[in-house]
Amino acid sequence: METSFYGESTFQSKVNRRTSPKLFKHHMELINALEWRYATKKMNGQAVDADKVDQILRAAHLAPSSAGFQPYHVLLITNQELKKEILPIANNQQQIVDCSHLLVFAAWDNYTPARFDSVFGNMISTRNLPTNALDDFRKQMEGMLLSRSAETNFEHCARQAYISFGMALAAAAELQVDATPMEGFKAPLLDVLLGLDQKGLKSVCLLPLGYRDASNDWLVNLKKVRTPMDQFVIEYK
Amino acid sequence: METSFYGESTFQSKVNRRTSPKLFKHHMELINALEWRYATKKMNGQAVDADKVDQILRAAHLAPSSAGFQPYHVLLITNQELKKEILPIANNQQQIVDCSHLLVFAAWDNYTPARFDSVFGNMISTRNLPTNALDDFRKQMEGMLLSRSAETNFEHCARQAYISFGMALAAAAELQVDATPMEGFKAPLLDVLLGLDQKGLKSVCLLPLGYRDASNDWLVNLKKVRTPMDQFVIEYK
Repeated sequence: METSFYGESTFQSKVNRRTSPKLFKHHMELINALEWRYATKKMNGQAVDADKVDQILRAAHLAPSSAGFQPYHVLLITNQELKKEILPIANNQQQIVDCSHLLVFAAWDNYTPARFDSVFGNMISTRNLPTNALDDFRKQMEGMLLSRSAETNFEHCARQAYISFGMALAAAAELQVDATPMEGFKAPLLDVLLGLDQKGLKSVCLLPLGYRDASNDWLVNLKKVRTPMDQFVIEYK
Repeated sequence: METSFYGESTFQSKVNRRTSPKLFKHHMELINALEWRYATKKMNGQAVDADKVDQILRAAHLAPSSAGFQPYHVLLITNQELKKEILPIANNQQQIVDCSHLLVFAAWDNYTPARFDSVFGNMISTRNLPTNALDDFRKQMEGMLLSRSAETNFEHCARQAYISFGMALAAAAELQVDATPMEGFKAPLLDVLLGLDQKGLKSVCLLPLGYRDASNDWLVNLKKVRTPMDQFVIEYK
């Protein structure tokens, strides 16, 4: 077994996109969108259309998750007074109040039998299965997950939420809606403010949606920084 | 402050897409792709073109991450003998050997000064900044991250890897490449097999890429299951 770095020489699209852009028509949209997006630092207050917010939420909703449990929710916040209360909790990052829609991704604090009731009930009714069709699968999942600590399970749920967070980011970018992925906030304080403890949820990341104020955003014209591709991808040949 | 569920009545796109599909032309691609994709259970062995794999890797590479550190790598495995060794480690899920390209997302096991050297060096050279331009930012990040446990930092890195995992999933779906997001594998054994400990990495999730064998895949025709949208999104008005 040899390992090697993913060389620029194997990086076909760089060449092909220059010589034959149409070849890549179908998938250029996501790549272009991801090149276009950046963590917007200053928003201009313009509201995102409800239709677009809806599509972003739909993308988040369609994200896959471990065993299909979707162990997280997306909170949609448009109330300006509430956003003002969140502002200091989010280290005074102004996008919190300058965005039109603030999404909060909040993961389950644990797996529980009640949550399994809900998840398996939904699977059975959606797929029109006999009531006991998933009993073995449920037993297997319960055996694995209910014996673990709440902390371990929460981390597992948080990871699933990040897939959804990624889908929302991708959707926003494709819609040319600006967004700022944020982890810099005091989650325990936000959880209290939003009453998440009563819901068995913990906030994990924020996504303000809006439009860039390009003339007042220090980041907008800076080059995107990424680990060089030939170091990011490690090829096992 | 009132909280409410995100009602079907506010779910504009359902109505609009029926009456005016062209309105949504721009963003339907991602939503359609996410509707189309599923966790493929049986692949047919057909190889994914290098160009497409490349685009999927580019989407993974473009994912945002906390402070732009990109604290993970994507391993690209095409060696069939190596895939056979991974098979039992991944609970004999046949997609491991039936896919043409197996992606392994592996997160940093910790933040370290050497890694900060590399990350900040790259930021400085990419943006052509004075050598000391990021000193304050670096001090702030080091103060926050180097005092935490390796375990906490690894979990943080793993979450970032999941955003990238989401982007790869979205890209594969847009390219109509099938993929199976997988967590069901023995990470410590895979880490040893791939020599990840020497690289300071830990595997967190797998993504076999290939094409569905629809006639032998029990999942392909089952309805996608998701938490009802009006429960998934919690609206704060």
